[in-house]
Amino acid sequence: MKVGVVMGSDSDFPVVVKALDILKAFGVKVTVRVLSAHRTPKEALAFAMGASQEGIEVMIAAAGKSAHLPGVMAAMTTVPVIGLPIMSSTLDGLDSLLSIVQMPKGIPVATVAINGGENAGILAVQILSVKYPELGEAMKQYRDQMQLEVLEKDESMVQKTRDYR
Amino acid sequence: MKVGVVMGSDSDFPVVVKALDILKAFGVKVTVRVLSAHRTPKEALAFAMGASQEGIEVMIAAAGKSAHLPGVMAAMTTVPVIGLPIMSSTLDGLDSLLSIVQMPKGIPVATVAINGGENAGILAVQILSVKYPELGEAMKQYRDQMQLEVLEKDESMVQKTRDYR
Amino acid sequence: MKVGVVMGSDSDFPVVVKALDILKAFGVKVTVRVLSAHRTPKEALAFAMGASQEGIEVMIAAAGKSAHLPGVMAAMTTVPVIGLPIMSSTLDGLDSLLSIVQMPKGIPVATVAINGGENAGILAVQILSVKYPELGEAMKQYRDQMQLEVLEKDESMVQKTRDYR
Amino acid sequence: MKVGVVMGSDSDFPVVVKALDILKAFGVKVTVRVLSAHRTPKEALAFAMGASQEGIEVMIAAAGKSAHLPGVMAAMTTVPVIGLPIMSSTLDGLDSLLSIVQMPKGIPVATVAINGGENAGILAVQILSVKYPELGEAMKQYRDQMQLEVLEKDESMVQKTRDYR
Amino acid sequence: MKVGVVMGSDSDFPVVVKALDILKAFGVKVTVRVLSAHRTPKEALAFAMGASQEGIEVMIAAAGKSAHLPGVMAAMTTVPVIGLPIMSSTLDGLDSLLSIVQMPKGIPVATVAINGGENAGILAVQILSVKYPELGEAMKQYRDQMQLEVLEKDESMVQKTRDYR
Amino acid sequence: MKVGVVMGSDSDFPVVVKALDILKAFGVKVTVRVLSAHRTPKEALAFAMGASQEGIEVMIAAAGKSAHLPGVMAAMTTVPVIGLPIMSSTLDGLDSLLSIVQMPKGIPVATVAINGGENAGILAVQILSVKYPELGEAMKQYRDQMQLEVLEKDESMVQKTRDYR
Amino acid sequence: MKVGVVMGSDSDFPVVVKALDILKAFGVKVTVRVLSAHRTPKEALAFAMGASQEGIEVMIAAAGKSAHLPGVMAAMTTVPVIGLPIMSSTLDGLDSLLSIVQMPKGIPVATVAINGGENAGILAVQILSVKYPELGEAMKQYRDQMQLEVLEKDESMVQKTRDYR
Amino acid sequence: MKVGVVMGSDSDFPVVVKALDILKAFGVKVTVRVLSAHRTPKEALAFAMGASQEGIEVMIAAAGKSAHLPGVMAAMTTVPVIGLPIMSSTLDGLDSLLSIVQMPKGIPVATVAINGGENAGILAVQILSVKYPELGEAMKQYRDQMQLEVLEKDESMVQKTRDYR
Repeated sequence: MKVGVVMGSDSDFPVVVKALDILKAFGVKVTVRVLSAHRTPKEALAFAMGASQEGIEVMIAAAGKSAHLPGVMAAMTTVPVIGLPIMSSTLDGLDSLLSIVQMPKGIPVATVAINGGENAGILAVQILSVKYPELGEAMKQYRDQMQLEVLEKDESMVQKTRDYR
Repeated sequence: MKVGVVMGSDSDFPVVVKALDILKAFGVKVTVRVLSAHRTPKEALAFAMGASQEGIEVMIAAAGKSAHLPGVMAAMTTVPVIGLPIMSSTLDGLDSLLSIVQMPKGIPVATVAINGGENAGILAVQILSVKYPELGEAMKQYRDQMQLEVLEKDESMVQKTRDYR
Repeated sequence: MKVGVVMGSDSDFPVVVKALDILKAFGVKVTVRVLSAHRTPKEALAFAMGASQEGIEVMIAAAGKSAHLPGVMAAMTTVPVIGLPIMSSTLDGLDSLLSIVQMPKGIPVATVAINGGENAGILAVQILSVKYPELGEAMKQYRDQMQLEVLEKDESMVQKTRDYR
Repeated sequence: MKVGVVMGSDSDFPVVVKALDILKAFGVKVTVRVLSAHRTPKEALAFAMGASQEGIEVMIAAAGKSAHLPGVMAAMTTVPVIGLPIMSSTLDGLDSLLSIVQMPKGIPVATVAINGGENAGILAVQILSVKYPELGEAMKQYRDQMQLEVLEKDESMVQKTRDYR
Repeated sequence: MKVGVVMGSDSDFPVVVKALDILKAFGVKVTVRVLSAHRTPKEALAFAMGASQEGIEVMIAAAGKSAHLPGVMAAMTTVPVIGLPIMSSTLDGLDSLLSIVQMPKGIPVATVAINGGENAGILAVQILSVKYPELGEAMKQYRDQMQLEVLEKDESMVQKTRDYR
Repeated sequence: MKVGVVMGSDSDFPVVVKALDILKAFGVKVTVRVLSAHRTPKEALAFAMGASQEGIEVMIAAAGKSAHLPGVMAAMTTVPVIGLPIMSSTLDGLDSLLSIVQMPKGIPVATVAINGGENAGILAVQILSVKYPELGEAMKQYRDQMQLEVLEKDESMVQKTRDYR
Repeated sequence: MKVGVVMGSDSDFPVVVKALDILKAFGVKVTVRVLSAHRTPKEALAFAMGASQEGIEVMIAAAGKSAHLPGVMAAMTTVPVIGLPIMSSTLDGLDSLLSIVQMPKGIPVATVAINGGENAGILAVQILSVKYPELGEAMKQYRDQMQLEVLEKDESMVQKTRDYR
Repeated sequence: MKVGVVMGSDSDFPVVVKALDILKAFGVKVTVRVLSAHRTPKEALAFAMGASQEGIEVMIAAAGKSAHLPGVMAAMTTVPVIGLPIMSSTLDGLDSLLSIVQMPKGIPVATVAINGGENAGILAVQILSVKYPELGEAMKQYRDQMQLEVLEKDESMVQKTRDYR
């Protein structure tokens, strides 16, 4: 089981690495590439078209501003493509979000929150778990762990706010 | 292979039915429900929690305004949840989109375009195709068909604009 | 008289504590919890459903991004729920605001300004004062105090700008 | 138990009447006024200041565009004020929403969705129910009724979509 | 000739002082007040209603968020009111701008740019110059001065970019 | 006393005529022109530069989309310029509003609400009333009339909603 | 001299034809195609890459929603590409505009107004006129004509508003 | 071959210089000016009107807020004008973008991304290359260079993420 992870610029890495860490924690292999829909279009298309062949079963594509990379990937493969909008220096990420999510009829991109690196990784795992039930089990444990962390914070909060009770 | 399709209100049906038609065309079975995160929260939760048991492998959740249904579904199952934002009478769908896509760390919703019924269906098929390769093949044919339609329109356009050549 | 205060993440505390300080100043007891509509949905629901039983008469729910917590709380109790939108790192709080305020017909959330911690507390006191007239009296004094502070600032300003007269 | 209902213009009535119908259904009396923060400021202030005296325990204020009426009401009474943003012919209601919800520190307005007439009425009933438990009971029944309606729609939907199963 | 300058909070002063400096440079007297439409409504109204009597011929009102102060002033006087939207910590000033500029039919507020302190002052001078021609003359000189400054910057730029010619 | 009224396109007339009717009602003469900052820039500039000479004491400039006309007028005269943003077929008037109101330091435009024809006229009258006190008196009467109309609507509303009392 | 005109869907034709009519009026030949960055990516790329060879000197690309076509064209040719954002059924064209204009460093798209078909055509002519001075002359005449039309409207307006003088 | 580069304020220089550096790299001469549509309108018009005479074949105009400079330039010359929106301290550049791109029918401005200095320069080169084929060749090499840089980053990324493979 393998996920293809592409980003439009290496400056997107700090967000993308959160997805990589999730995938690693679930034992999912990745191929990570810097590919630009505009500056290296041929390489981008080649990667998308060969993805399935290469054993890639889900793709994550991160991009900012006029974020065309996820849509361009999605157009060249039938592997599900997760779009990860990156906030750039202007417009607070709204441009990236709309460029990725508002795909026309026929070619969807599964969009997650602006800068939502972890969620891109988690969604990839959930999609893979349709085929690999062990990932579904692992995801349940991951959620239990998340829950425990929130419950601990809940308990701390109850302590911390004792004086207000 | 089965997809659970839920909508927050039966007024969302004209958009949702486009997803159903796609799923039917690909031979994917569906369970369709009207469930409200706010008005029938218990039924909504029960459906989400039992989804996997019931054989549902992907879920589509459509909702408008403060569109909580997709996120609430996603919180109660590890099955991937596709969020379909419905444009309501105010704010042009921006509220629905942001309520669905901006999910916090840990629980992603795979969001498609506002009123993007077809794309919700197509994305569901693509996710299922990770497990069922025959769906991937069918999707390639579907794309070929789409391509043919665009090519025909292209040809018509070339004819139609002859006088401008 | 007691107010239930829940937040989606302990990182919301710096905003929420302003509500707590207001409530403390008015002698209103609170129960403060970290509950996530998405990561600890069962605890969240249990809290909402038991709130009235536990003596809670008004609830404040703070959340950011796809801020579902206030709506989910409101769906499980008839106690009035005040929604407090938290500004997150993208979109300047607009996502939180729309997710909370645009509730569908049937389940309202009484929404205050983005990051409006004090106003969430004050609104809770005003709602309680419908039943407890002494809180209404205290609120009048609080307003008189606020007014005095503005009047003092007014006077300082008159001094400070003497050279422009 | 009485609710004061004010609107900035009689053209807001089609939205406001939805609140009135809710209030009537719950047996809550109302005083309904057309008062403008800008065109009849003195009458508006007089009404707000006398509200409590007149037995009004909650207020609903509807307004569009630069929607100052709810805030101006809230400034002159400690009775909780529900703000109902009205969509006008430009900007899709965003101006009304922001003008009402973004109140500065000290004077909150309990804001509901744009054009959310029913929810303004329901929130008023919920606030009153803090004092009048019978309203809380009635609200539970109202919710049960809403739930039944959704469940019926759910059942119809299951029927209607049989061919997709 | 006198201008009344009011602000909703003394934290608006750094923007407002730019208007004061303009007015001083033109020899226009001012009365500067901190008045809140919400926290000191009576003082605000009293000031607006007495403005004309006090010799005030134009008013500048600065406010942020749900910026009601300019509209409330405008409702209580027929003196022209200039609205100065202040950017607050959320929503980048859009809330302040819409709250001030979208006034309903009958009561206009002459709105300038977000945080546009200087322009509020200049507009006040231009309005006064309808009556006091000497101010119009002075404004022409002020513009000539501005023009000179831009021309100097233009010349510097030509120098600075010599290597690109 | 005379007001110059310019619009960027004769399609703006239905909004602009509301200003004309106000001005006529107050006995203020007008010069009305269709002038485009982009298509007839020389005529636009000539009109602005000659305005004062021609006896124009206030200007109203209406424009939509990239609404440069008010700013361009304001740059060529020291007469106060009122900007009237016209809603066009896209973006709901937000483009017109921002293009007019966000003027840089030095050249203000007194902006009114999107499509706020009446208010542009009323603001012009208020500005003229700084010089012509009789207009201020007339404006007070106009307001009294407006107030009467609201009061009548208020009374009708009280009647109309009797059954809800 | 030839312009390549591509649109993402034949439903964009009513806007695109305005560009064609302009180009025809200036005697510029066109090649018009329906090409989708997502549904017929290979044809789209082939057209872009062969454009220069085929004698195309400027390109116009129209698209809506996640409008990737102009950027994808621009990435595959060094011929200047004019982006024409089409308003779709949601978000009022803002998604199309941002997807087209916010191109990352390296690959610009010369963006015109939402639904600005004529301007796309005019800009193409202006770009060609850098090489073909006769087009620049024709453009000056076109402008003179536009100017005459505005001047006529101006004159009509002066007549039409005589009663307001 | 020469490009005229104008900016509304010398504070725009850090963005504009990126265009200058591109133009220099391609051996294109420039004339750089600080010209304000509002503060030095006559100089701005004179420059636009004389541009063609002076040998300027393309113009770049940078401006922020109510960014009228590009449109005003475009109105006075038939040379193609590239609009470069500058992000100012409020509204994240949305005001600049809309003021520049939403030009009315007849006078287009070729708009690039907010703060997109490089792209303004590159677009100018692309437009000039319609006439000067050597620039088109140089642009192809520039793209090859960009491509190489992305490919190197791609390779580094593959290395950097080895542990995730």
